[in-house]
Amino acid sequence: MKIELENVLPREIEKRSFELITEELGERTFPEEQEPIIKRCIHTSADFDYADNLCFSEGVVEKAKEAIRNGACIVTDTQMAKSGINKKKLAAYGGEVFCFMSDEDVAERAKKNGTTRATACMDKAAAMNRPLIFAIGNAPTALIRLYELIEEKKLKPELVIGVPVGFVNVVQSKELIMQADVPYIVARGRKGGSNIAACICNALLYNM
Amino acid sequence: MKIELENVLPREIEKRSFELITEELGERTFPEEQEPIIKRCIHTSADFDYADNLCFSEGVVEKAKEAIRNGACIVTDTQMAKSGINKKKLAAYGGEVFCFMSDEDVAERAKKNGTTRATACMDKAAAMNRPLIFAIGNAPTALIRLYELIEEKKLKPELVIGVPVGFVNVVQSKELIMQADVPYIVARGRKGGSNIAACICNALLYNM
Repeated sequence: MKIELENVLPREIEKRSFELITEELGERTFPEEQEPIIKRCIHTSADFDYADNLCFSEGVVEKAKEAIRNGACIVTDTQMAKSGINKKKLAAYGGEVFCFMSDEDVAERAKKNGTTRATACMDKAAAMNRPLIFAIGNAPTALIRLYELIEEKKLKPELVIGVPVGFVNVVQSKELIMQADVPYIVARGRKGGSNIAACICNALLYNM
Repeated sequence: MKIELENVLPREIEKRSFELITEELGERTFPEEQEPIIKRCIHTSADFDYADNLCFSEGVVEKAKEAIRNGACIVTDTQMAKSGINKKKLAAYGGEVFCFMSDEDVAERAKKNGTTRATACMDKAAAMNRPLIFAIGNAPTALIRLYELIEEKKLKPELVIGVPVGFVNVVQSKELIMQADVPYIVARGRKGGSNIAACICNALLYNM
């Protein structure tokens, strides 16, 4: 079989990818500020479900950018998401990325309380005295704990990116966080992931 | 809206997820050695397309495990994939994970040759004198370069995990690597990603 490669310069690959995504989306339109986020999720996954499953609370994109401009930090529930977020761009506004999943005190707290480590991470984050964006790409238990902390007025995130992936309580945890009083970007349903969590952070950072 | 959470112990979540995946796959069966890999890809992505798109060269799973047991190292094309691979498990057999994407000499070589950095990374890896598994979750250009290096007999990988994601030459790069004389696990089509690359490595490591 003869395989024909498309001749695209290295620096043009991303641009060409977004053109192809736009072409395939055809007549579909999105709110202007949401469009780069939706398209980047499709770019990251090659999965057009993200054209349908992403839910945005009112004015969330502007609120998120404002938070970043004010030095908000990002807390993630996986080292993979942390590794994928453009930390240099975030640092330009004074923010940092944190993932507490490998911390010893988190492991201890989780064991003591019979929770997941992701839950314990959210408690650790709640004790930080900085404006926070949460990017949850893996653990629905993290999202559920965020919901509780917000309801109990122990935490007031600037933004929750709720895109855990999977089968146990994933769908429910996302519906729950959308009922909380917090700006959110959520991938409704089972899909999501660390890559999607990082990609939404980057879509915000690349379109400031 | 009342949201009902499923009551699952933290340590049972993964087990329960795999049960749900098995349930939804219904009557479908897979070759025994491939099944944990296919199911883990679905677990990582909540995307059942992986039940159809994963292609395995003959005997690849056993060959890959043998390579790991012999201390093979894993080379990836993203820091995200590197971060997601269970490095402790791999180290137990003497292997390490490498990602050269942020290396200065790679950036220089890419600039000089007008290639992507991913291409330059493959050249750097080809100079290593160790048994290598390649886990490519992002850059089709890496996969294309691997094909060339294998054809030119400059590289003889133990395994190529070919799961780049996207729109420009992704489909083609995967068809290409499946024509090379190399053991492969490939996600045919556009889908894949760093998460899938890491997850296939882990599926091998968790089922030794």
